[in-house]
Amino acid sequence: LDLGRPALRAFLEPLLQGQQMKRPKVPKGTRDSGPEQMAIREKAFSTILEVFRRHGAVGIDTPVFELRETLMGKYGEDSKLIYDLADQGGELLSLRYDLTVPFARFLAMSSNTQIKRYHIAKVYRRDNPAMNKGRFREFYQCDFDVAGTYGAMIPDADVIKVLTEILDELRIGRYVVKLNHRKILDAMMAVCGVPAEKFRTICSAIDKLDKETWEDVKEEMVSQKGLDPAVADRIGDFVRADSQYVAIRAQPNEVLTLLRAHAELSQHPQAQAAFQDLETLFRYLTAMRCLDRIHFDLSLARGLDYYTGVIYEAVLTETDRVGSIAAGGRYDGLVGRFSGSDVPAVGVSIGIERILTILEEQERARAQGKIRATATDILVASIGSKMLESRMEICAELWAAGIKAEFLYKENPKIQPQIQYALESGIPFMLIIGGDEIAQGIVKVKNLRAQTEVVIQRAEMVSRLIADINEEKQVL
Amino acid sequence: LDLGRPALRAFLEPLLQGQQMKRPKVPKGTRDSGPEQMAIREKAFSTILEVFRRHGAVGIDTPVFELRETLMGKYGEDSKLIYDLADQGGELLSLRYDLTVPFARFLAMSSNTQIKRYHIAKVYRRDNPAMNKGRFREFYQCDFDVAGTYGAMIPDADVIKVLTEILDELRIGRYVVKLNHRKILDAMMAVCGVPAEKFRTICSAIDKLDKETWEDVKEEMVSQKGLDPAVADRIGDFVRADSQYVAIRAQPNEVLTLLRAHAELSQHPQAQAAFQDLETLFRYLTAMRCLDRIHFDLSLARGLDYYTGVIYEAVLTETDRVGSIAAGGRYDGLVGRFSGSDVPAVGVSIGIERILTILEEQERARAQGKIRATATDILVASIGSKMLESRMEICAELWAAGIKAEFLYKENPKIQPQIQYALESGIPFMLIIGGDEIAQGIVKVKNLRAQTEVVIQRAEMVSRLIADINEEKQVL
Repeated sequence: LDLGRPALRAFLEPLLQGQQMKRPKVPKGTRDSGPEQMAIREKAFSTILEVFRRHGAVGIDTPVFELRETLMGKYGEDSKLIYDLADQGGELLSLRYDLTVPFARFLAMSSNTQIKRYHIAKVYRRDNPAMNKGRFREFYQCDFDVAGTYGAMIPDADVIKVLTEILDELRIGRYVVKLNHRKILDAMMAVCGVPAEKFRTICSAIDKLDKETWEDVKEEMVSQKGLDPAVADRIGDFVRADSQYVAIRAQPNEVLTLLRAHAELSQHPQAQAAFQDLETLFRYLTAMRCLDRIHFDLSLARGLDYYTGVIYEAVLTETDRVGSIAAGGRYDGLVGRFSGSDVPAVGVSIGIERILTILEEQERARAQGKIRATATDILVASIGSKMLESRMEICAELWAAGIKAEFLYKENPKIQPQIQYALESGIPFMLIIGGDEIAQGIVKVKNLRAQTEVVIQRAEMVSRLIADINEEKQVL
Repeated sequence: LDLGRPALRAFLEPLLQGQQMKRPKVPKGTRDSGPEQMAIREKAFSTILEVFRRHGAVGIDTPVFELRETLMGKYGEDSKLIYDLADQGGELLSLRYDLTVPFARFLAMSSNTQIKRYHIAKVYRRDNPAMNKGRFREFYQCDFDVAGTYGAMIPDADVIKVLTEILDELRIGRYVVKLNHRKILDAMMAVCGVPAEKFRTICSAIDKLDKETWEDVKEEMVSQKGLDPAVADRIGDFVRADSQYVAIRAQPNEVLTLLRAHAELSQHPQAQAAFQDLETLFRYLTAMRCLDRIHFDLSLARGLDYYTGVIYEAVLTETDRVGSIAAGGRYDGLVGRFSGSDVPAVGVSIGIERILTILEEQERARAQGKIRATATDILVASIGSKMLESRMEICAELWAAGIKAEFLYKENPKIQPQIQYALESGIPFMLIIGGDEIAQGIVKVKNLRAQTEVVIQRAEMVSRLIADINEEKQVL
């Protein structure tokens, strides 16, 4: 019994002290991503990045923690969900809650206030986790924002176009982008008779209409929030699922025409400004061929304090398991809260964890449970003994040519476990050498899918393999 | 004066209360990465990822924070540099200090203990920052590790090969990989007469020989650590820059031969085991064509507790500004400290921030200060007014074909600022339309480098542009 072995010591020590060795685990609400999840995640990120770059965006990155004062007062009631770091001397820090406030802080520190940027990074919320729905305490967001003064509604249209391209290219199934305008919400509440100080809290009640019935929402407005029931009913005329507006939400321009015919709303200056915005936006989205993805939905009332214009949220229409999968809007006042000078901005945040939950299920079904986690093109195998260094030499030659190659980490493996490994990992080709092949300066190459084998001169090995691998990728 | 404007309110409120508005900033030791840095970072990450995948590795990800108990007792004196989260109820958490301990924790929780994995992620150390040397409190590490029981020294050789391929392909200048073995260090100290309880502390003194003179290091051993001066001198015979071993460190096999001839060392069982390891390793590195990058350097004595076998560290040889740019080794006992059953493992961690410091300087010199941050292929421009929706329609067509295209966010821009924008952003092509072009169903396409212009039928626009863009990429 070698008590010097650290594992043995670590195992025995607690036992000797009458304790059990603790099973290691990850913090509540977080998870490791294993190889298969990572393969799906990296593919999704690369699709998303491609769309961001296709629209001319630049990347930025910010620290995972911010000065606590940077985050304070930006998230309303949700501020209680912020993770604080311990006070270990020095500055008071908190983990970022989203990527929008750090972006506003970045802009306020920057001399360049015209920027179209993306940022893919993790954010942190001490929320109640619901892992199977894709709700975690640590999760990635993929954000795209345009800051600066431009022609009215042009960046807003580009942001929405980016969102629809991403959701189309991720192939996660049918979706719609629900869209509304903060100023219409404010005007609607004003003409319905909601007292100004109750706008926000009534907004957050309306926002629950995607999960709760109108009766429940009205009950919350009246009993909990002290709204006159007659006022609540007037709001209901706009936002109930069976209201004339919501019924035709899939025709954004028709909703707009109907609202413009509303006697009081049409006279409200905030509503008039919003009508102008939306008319322009819908024209641009038509030109960009994505208005058909839009639902102009008066019941969309996103809770965050900082939105000032158009707001939107994407939801899948064939499943209600994951809730919203992307959300965003215009926030013209946020940067000014850091620098004192306003920088208008509009953006969208993709809720990638929920999307990955869907993609992983799809991929498992498609691949019958077996998702490929490596990208290896060829396994360099051998028959007979003392071939390890030959396998290494061949691999080094293939790697130098950019070919993805592996060999078994064993001195003298039998051929069967090598074939087994290639099949299990989904590696399409095997290169096989033995003493004879080395002596003759040749290699054998097997295509495992097509079950063919060819003999190649060692001098032509690299060029032939590059051609064969590319051809196989066309087939798959 | 509209006091409802949030920026104005945020600006005025502190003034009204007699305070100044605080300039926003990032936490000490951290930084934002702007678009140019991100372009360089993303390119470097993609080079590194490509090498990891080329060797058949899979990706994993772990949470940025771990249970505090997971990190405790793993980093020796450096544990004081760990960031703790505040106790807000629930578990006690800390930010990860490296990616190795989380990997060991991951393995201990996993049923699969044979894995070749990479992990690119941020780690956190409450260290004294030195930003211009690339030393930060938040920084990325790029790790590659192989866990599991395999043929002796085979994964070790593959890990070192991965390291040299990455450093070669990043083109950061000449480097060497300094290499040593924990068991040789231990045997060396034993035969020199260092008391066993002083091995670690004398090791960390030796490790300073890359920055300090032998006299200073000896002084530390003798005065601070209470070592007999005669014992220190015997260590010096092995590790001094002018020792017979260090003088020939660029010929690893010669150093090995010399050590095997050492009367006492050659009799020490630990040294014998290490000699066997290194002889095998050097044979494999020769087969993989990278032994020429290795310095077998007895003065390399990495401080971390968990190493048990070969250890290595890469340094640039043409500059001493940034210190070590990668480091790693074998750690066979770490996983067992979580699970009670040993899983042998070996790996390397690339210090990407230091490398990026170098790459950014190189890139700035090469590009004469102007680093391209976007990937846009073509700017869709117009002459005359009322062309915005036509520009949008064309962009939508190009995006649908995967072409990276932008248009100016302005209703009726003049042509000059559009040309200006393309030149400043380094966009290679401009597509230009006016009323005439729309009427005739054509577009004009300018190659800004070659200063040529062609007229293309609208029906052939996409296929012609794809060909032209690909051709231009060959030229650049």
